[in-house]
Amino acid sequence: MSKQWLMHFEEGNQSLAGLLGGKGANLAEMTRAGLAVPPGFTITTEACRAYYLESRLPGGLFREVREAMTVLEVRKGQRFGDAAAPLLVSVRSGSVTSMPGMMDTILNLGLNDETVQGLAAATNNPRFAYDCYRRLIQMFGTVVFGIEGAWFEKKLHALKEAHAAHSDQSVTAEAWQELIGTYKSLILKRAGTAFPQDVYEQLHMAVEAVFRSWNNSRAQIYRRLNGIPDEQGTAVNIQAMVFGNLNEASGTGVVFTRNPSTGEGVLFGEYLTNAQGEDVVAGVRTPQPIAGLQQDMPAIYEQLVAMAGLLEKHYRDMQDIEFTIENGTLYMLQTRSGKRTAQAAMRIAVELVRAGILTREEALMRVEPSHLDQLLHPSLDESAAPAALGTGLPASPGAACGQAVFTADEAQEQARSGKAVILVRTETTPEDIHGVLAARGVLTSRGGMTSHAAVVARGMGKPCVCGCEALVIHAKQRRAVIGGQTIAEGDWLTIDGATGRVMIGEVPLKEADMSAELLEMLQWADDVRGMKVYANADNPEDAAKARSFGAEGVGLCRTEHMFLSPQRLPIVQKMILADTEAVRAEALGELLPMQRSDFAAIFRAMAGLPVTIRLLDPPLHEFLPNLEDLLTRHAHLSAARKERAASTPETDESPGIPAAANSNERSSGPVIRSDVSRESIPAGGRQSPESDLELQQLEALIRKVRGLHEVNPMLGQRGCRLGILFPEIYGMQIEAIFAAVQDCIRDGIEVSPEIMIPLVGHANELRIMRELVDQVAQKMLGDNRNAVPYRVGTMIEVPRAALTAPQIAAHADFFSFGTNDLTQMTFGYSRDDAEGKFLTHYVDNKLLPDNPFQVLDRDGVGQLIDLAVTRARALKPKLKTGVCGEHGGDPKSIRLCREMGLDYVSCSPYRVPIARIAAAQAEIEAAEAEKNSLAEQQKIVS
Amino acid sequence: MSKQWLMHFEEGNQSLAGLLGGKGANLAEMTRAGLAVPPGFTITTEACRAYYLESRLPGGLFREVREAMTVLEVRKGQRFGDAAAPLLVSVRSGSVTSMPGMMDTILNLGLNDETVQGLAAATNNPRFAYDCYRRLIQMFGTVVFGIEGAWFEKKLHALKEAHAAHSDQSVTAEAWQELIGTYKSLILKRAGTAFPQDVYEQLHMAVEAVFRSWNNSRAQIYRRLNGIPDEQGTAVNIQAMVFGNLNEASGTGVVFTRNPSTGEGVLFGEYLTNAQGEDVVAGVRTPQPIAGLQQDMPAIYEQLVAMAGLLEKHYRDMQDIEFTIENGTLYMLQTRSGKRTAQAAMRIAVELVRAGILTREEALMRVEPSHLDQLLHPSLDESAAPAALGTGLPASPGAACGQAVFTADEAQEQARSGKAVILVRTETTPEDIHGVLAARGVLTSRGGMTSHAAVVARGMGKPCVCGCEALVIHAKQRRAVIGGQTIAEGDWLTIDGATGRVMIGEVPLKEADMSAELLEMLQWADDVRGMKVYANADNPEDAAKARSFGAEGVGLCRTEHMFLSPQRLPIVQKMILADTEAVRAEALGELLPMQRSDFAAIFRAMAGLPVTIRLLDPPLHEFLPNLEDLLTRHAHLSAARKERAASTPETDESPGIPAAANSNERSSGPVIRSDVSRESIPAGGRQSPESDLELQQLEALIRKVRGLHEVNPMLGQRGCRLGILFPEIYGMQIEAIFAAVQDCIRDGIEVSPEIMIPLVGHANELRIMRELVDQVAQKMLGDNRNAVPYRVGTMIEVPRAALTAPQIAAHADFFSFGTNDLTQMTFGYSRDDAEGKFLTHYVDNKLLPDNPFQVLDRDGVGQLIDLAVTRARALKPKLKTGVCGEHGGDPKSIRLCREMGLDYVSCSPYRVPIARIAAAQAEIEAAEAEKNSLAEQQKIVS
Repeated sequence: MSKQWLMHFEEGNQSLAGLLGGKGANLAEMTRAGLAVPPGFTITTEACRAYYLESRLPGGLFREVREAMTVLEVRKGQRFGDAAAPLLVSVRSGSVTSMPGMMDTILNLGLNDETVQGLAAATNNPRFAYDCYRRLIQMFGTVVFGIEGAWFEKKLHALKEAHAAHSDQSVTAEAWQELIGTYKSLILKRAGTAFPQDVYEQLHMAVEAVFRSWNNSRAQIYRRLNGIPDEQGTAVNIQAMVFGNLNEASGTGVVFTRNPSTGEGVLFGEYLTNAQGEDVVAGVRTPQPIAGLQQDMPAIYEQLVAMAGLLEKHYRDMQDIEFTIENGTLYMLQTRSGKRTAQAAMRIAVELVRAGILTREEALMRVEPSHLDQLLHPSLDESAAPAALGTGLPASPGAACGQAVFTADEAQEQARSGKAVILVRTETTPEDIHGVLAARGVLTSRGGMTSHAAVVARGMGKPCVCGCEALVIHAKQRRAVIGGQTIAEGDWLTIDGATGRVMIGEVPLKEADMSAELLEMLQWADDVRGMKVYANADNPEDAAKARSFGAEGVGLCRTEHMFLSPQRLPIVQKMILADTEAVRAEALGELLPMQRSDFAAIFRAMAGLPVTIRLLDPPLHEFLPNLEDLLTRHAHLSAARKERAASTPETDESPGIPAAANSNERSSGPVIRSDVSRESIPAGGRQSPESDLELQQLEALIRKVRGLHEVNPMLGQRGCRLGILFPEIYGMQIEAIFAAVQDCIRDGIEVSPEIMIPLVGHANELRIMRELVDQVAQKMLGDNRNAVPYRVGTMIEVPRAALTAPQIAAHADFFSFGTNDLTQMTFGYSRDDAEGKFLTHYVDNKLLPDNPFQVLDRDGVGQLIDLAVTRARALKPKLKTGVCGEHGGDPKSIRLCREMGLDYVSCSPYRVPIARIAAAQAEIEAAEAEKNSLAEQQKIVS
Repeated sequence: MSKQWLMHFEEGNQSLAGLLGGKGANLAEMTRAGLAVPPGFTITTEACRAYYLESRLPGGLFREVREAMTVLEVRKGQRFGDAAAPLLVSVRSGSVTSMPGMMDTILNLGLNDETVQGLAAATNNPRFAYDCYRRLIQMFGTVVFGIEGAWFEKKLHALKEAHAAHSDQSVTAEAWQELIGTYKSLILKRAGTAFPQDVYEQLHMAVEAVFRSWNNSRAQIYRRLNGIPDEQGTAVNIQAMVFGNLNEASGTGVVFTRNPSTGEGVLFGEYLTNAQGEDVVAGVRTPQPIAGLQQDMPAIYEQLVAMAGLLEKHYRDMQDIEFTIENGTLYMLQTRSGKRTAQAAMRIAVELVRAGILTREEALMRVEPSHLDQLLHPSLDESAAPAALGTGLPASPGAACGQAVFTADEAQEQARSGKAVILVRTETTPEDIHGVLAARGVLTSRGGMTSHAAVVARGMGKPCVCGCEALVIHAKQRRAVIGGQTIAEGDWLTIDGATGRVMIGEVPLKEADMSAELLEMLQWADDVRGMKVYANADNPEDAAKARSFGAEGVGLCRTEHMFLSPQRLPIVQKMILADTEAVRAEALGELLPMQRSDFAAIFRAMAGLPVTIRLLDPPLHEFLPNLEDLLTRHAHLSAARKERAASTPETDESPGIPAAANSNERSSGPVIRSDVSRESIPAGGRQSPESDLELQQLEALIRKVRGLHEVNPMLGQRGCRLGILFPEIYGMQIEAIFAAVQDCIRDGIEVSPEIMIPLVGHANELRIMRELVDQVAQKMLGDNRNAVPYRVGTMIEVPRAALTAPQIAAHADFFSFGTNDLTQMTFGYSRDDAEGKFLTHYVDNKLLPDNPFQVLDRDGVGQLIDLAVTRARALKPKLKTGVCGEHGGDPKSIRLCREMGLDYVSCSPYRVPIARIAAAQAEIEAAEAEKNSLAEQQKIVS
């Protein structure tokens, strides 16, 4: 037998996580370190993979399990299935990468109608024994037989009502026995088979169920969300039970070695006396803060603090520890690196560095860049905040506003249609994960800081308020009541995850300040990284914001956003609809001073840093009204006209709707009044006599819009194609840039304008546009031209541009890879059409490893960039290169950019700190890799 | 002085064409061969380039010209500007590549008010002298001063009317003197300066004008059309005049050494006695066939035949010779390789090979592939041809139908809107070239076989009937009269360029037979070429046609064309609109037998040859009605409903038009009646009560069409993305293919199906689709599966596919480069939007060397193909590769495909012979290049 099917805790260690799973490896590690861990063994992930290969448990596995059980029996002095001293075990999944709450667990396995009596006798606590047994049957029913938990809960609820029991603790042994009968019938009815009395049959079925649970849908979603490979598989940990619910000298709890919300260096956590671990995690009972344990059981508390310190030092990270106290003895059930908020992560990392436990580089590598933006989340504008109607636990920081929804499905649906929602639930379960993902924030009425909702929300960096007991939820009626007020579905709510406050209405939010730890960490990142971080900013506010987050320049300023304001749009439309060059020139003349002041303001905000301005990019029809709206309006006007015609005998024929077919009109068509804007096309059907004139104008406009219509606007007349056909438009923009430069110079402000020509596909395009820039610069700056170090470059966003990079580089001072469009054209995916249609299917079904619009595609788009950079630099070694697509803010993509030797990434202002960290991590990884390869070489040499 | 500004004819030779232009080099070659060429010299193209560089004639040039003129004076015993024995010269442009009629010429230069009297005295022919002088002034006026020829013609016409002269010949010397005065005033008035009396001033201005003419718009158009580089420049030939219009023992003519229409090996051409060369070329007088010269001047004729033979042997090609007879002496004025029809080209080439003058390879290289399709032009269906209303000269073969237009501009405009037009002109001039280009055929009432219209039409491979004297054209009134019938603009005409017949109406055309010479040439091509030629054929008829043209397989069978027939479209729509899988399956079940018989018929037509079938490619909405039509219909129905509502008090609200915004519907929406087809949406507004039901169905349909709407359909849900989302559709097509295979096998027909998956961008797509094909094959063929050598491959049409070719090749038996889409995505050009918009501007302004949809882009798209082929073959050396875009029929692109080592090209059936020749030429060129490089290497070695 070459495969390793199982391993006792004593035999394993932390480095075997791939084989034993994280939990198994940690249990082994703790066991070897001499901590009080109940004895057990781990069925390996290899067995899981074999199970999926053969669709059954591998042969020989159970022989080994029986042998291992014998070892446990000896250690515990009990026997599995023995009526007098029954050994009970837990069966838990344990994946390689932590997937909290995603998978299945069965406790108290080994109980049956006989052994339960033995347990009752041995503990002298029949209520406890039957409680254990009913828990087993319920867990077994849901996990093994797949019966919905609600069926069991209903029976439990009915039982408690019948016995007038307010809590589980007040249920008597007899009542539990009654429930056990009910549960057994329930299983027989729903699963068609009886609850197994043979304890090895129980064990066999449980192991198989855990293996199956690896592929349940919530586990699959979690893996996809977290990039965990499907072929890892899960291990199964079988461990002798210890009972936190044995008596009042027993209990169970979860502690973090530091506060996972703030990072403060004190033990943090919760416990319940006389309870099993699942009661804490599931949030069924609201637990006590761990500080309470110091009063209740001071000796145990001391032991716990000592062990926590030991474990943190051992693992060099904050630990998330599960413990159980059985009749005054403390057992460690699990330890792992704890999930934390970004704020806590910063503080913990910085403090571990200060304590000499970590190096700066190690601390940087510990930061999860994707969680960082949580730190930059807006918080409540306290000056505008109303009184809270209730307060829950501050489970995950940040404030969020949204419309209330009461189910995960509804959250997902509403979010898809673009709404901001707050998911309001009594408590969340793993089945709700898609709802949490879709919501802006989560609010629950039950559960503590380590409840499912809290853990998941923190993991995702979403604001969350938990256990707000003032909240009464009527999910079926889609409403809730808090502080006497009713919240109906769709009502606005604001939650503050930092304080736990819940408010009705849409409270204004304000930007977060950066903590001292974050600033320190970012400084370390800046010391390490080689790649610069720019920001995409279209206005002075964004530029200032980006600068405050550490942006070292503007990598993309989209000038078209400046065209869309209500005051400017009519002028832009006048320019587009111009019949003569004179009219166009007039409109451009009106736009010039506006653009000039736009640019000057951005230059001021970024004084001393480069500002990359992209000239007009979108097709002109984007600035005109929508054709369908116009046609609808036309239909209304025509109908009104006909009506009038019917009541007035003499009237000439309607000119009719202009034909669509083969319109070959030039882009300067018939004269149209210049004040036609989106706003001036009312939807209703005014039926006054002036509508004849309006009809004519409308038809002229329709002709124009049709003339500019494109079948595939993404591949149409846009970018520098506009600049080449209408050099006067680009000319105006360039003039505005240099005028703004002069304004700033006059005020003593240092400016570094970089003019970016979009959508170049052939070197000639850039050559001609560059000539235009140089001409205007000469005209505007004259002899001062050399005093302003302006650059001219291009976006590389058409595959052909990447392929012919050396030719294009001859005319370029910089290349900015427009990875959004480059991805669209390299894949042949229209983002508008792909996402939500086939692309979702592709990602869900693993045809693609990632959504290429989120993570830069290494093999295709990456290859093009690499090829372009390498070849262009061979010709022009100092060519500046960067990425300005959305990928510029994605850590995985940033790593690839570093690898390809780009000079900078540019991303949205809020992602600048993330990019700084990610760039540093990429640098550290690269240095590490180089060191390893050097070591490898030296090995070969020596 | 390092530059060579001029060269006497005696000093040059044929190899100096780059410096002397074609005409100058030939004049030099003829002079050195001892033929009777009037003395002269050539101002070089270097001088022309210097002129464009300095914007004036280069310094020193005119000193050299004066010296050279002295040499001419000595030879002719005359002096330039001498009142007694004046030397007259012609000044002609002469470009490197022949550009017939595109550029300018001035004759009789050296005449002024004094020298004209000397000429009159010397020739004792005042009428001749004044005729020469008025011609000079007119040519000078148009060429140098740019006055429109019509101004002069009007004066000439008025003069002839006033003097009742029917022809130029009957105008008296006195009348010519009167006209000379009129012309001089005309020049003074229109040019603001007098006609120069200083003969060197005349010469200076003439040379400069010829240089200028290099850049006039018709020369530019011609160059672009023929791919002649702008920087070549033109030479200027200055040659002593000889006078074909001196007396009745004089004359001028143009002969071809063989018949340029048929290739027959007899002298072919025309002449006029007592005329200057321009009279023949311009088609002003209708000349006599050259055979007439044998009667009129037998000795001259013998000399001409001998010289023709000499020249053809010397140049190893059919020659186009201009000659002049001056008072009984024969002079050669020009020789060059003659333009010819494709049919003639074949025959000439084959006969030159038979005569041992050319090798087969040389003959093949002489074939212009782009003219070959002329041979495949349809001809008249004689059984349906009506009697001709008139007959002209059969100037360029092939038959054409079209609507009559009377100006070149109109021809261009109508052709742009998709109409077939015949350009009807009295005669054409170089200004009409865009009209000839746009027309299906050309009909003139004047001019001979060597007139402008004839030469240009032959060059373009367009049918042309010339000199149809029965035709009277009233261009201003946009009508013509022939055989008593009036042809108005827009009336249908049919011309037969093979016989010269002109018919009214649209006469059916039939396919051309291939001549024995063409077949022989194609056979030679097949012997030489290595690359296979397949055809794109979507139905059995096209497949059969392609096979008859020599196609060696079907490279692209587009299955969607089979979906669009009126009987099938409703079923396709039913499939698309299906609400349930059952309904979709039912529709697919109906389509299956249809596709099966389609495929079987194509397999039969191509028995023994590979047939590449591309599975469904276009987005599904292409099969549904147009949204705008539906909305218009909806508006009508709603209005009708409202009207009824107004007359009937109780009615419920209109359901309203479905909203457009953010429709997130899945593609299987509400059930819709399956018989909704494009045809079933009438444009009018039926207002019956059933329209309520119709309205509801319409709204459902609108929702569906909106759901499938795409912003950029080119980059949307199409190709294999459909196959992955709806495997049942591809499954049906694959099943139909294998069913057809079985049908054929049963009938003993050999089949080689190649199943092509479109739009693959990631290897996983092809992997999954290949699995589907193999599954269906297994299901359909079972144990016979291995007996049918089917292949599975993909179109490489997404840049990413080319970039990741090795991964994709792992699942492919063949790659077919879909260069149409690959060009669209590599350039980021939507063909629908680019052509006629910016792309036209780009090509016209030389931003791009060619339209990349016509000529494969070497640097971008070519690079991708090359990279894909090289890398994929490294992994899979036997991978079959080809091109199936339109480029497969373009000779320049075919050369590139050969270079990149593709196995085949696939093109439309009619271009198969062209592709065969082009592939052979590519092979010969490659062999030549290899030989040269080997020789080069040996030189280095030795």
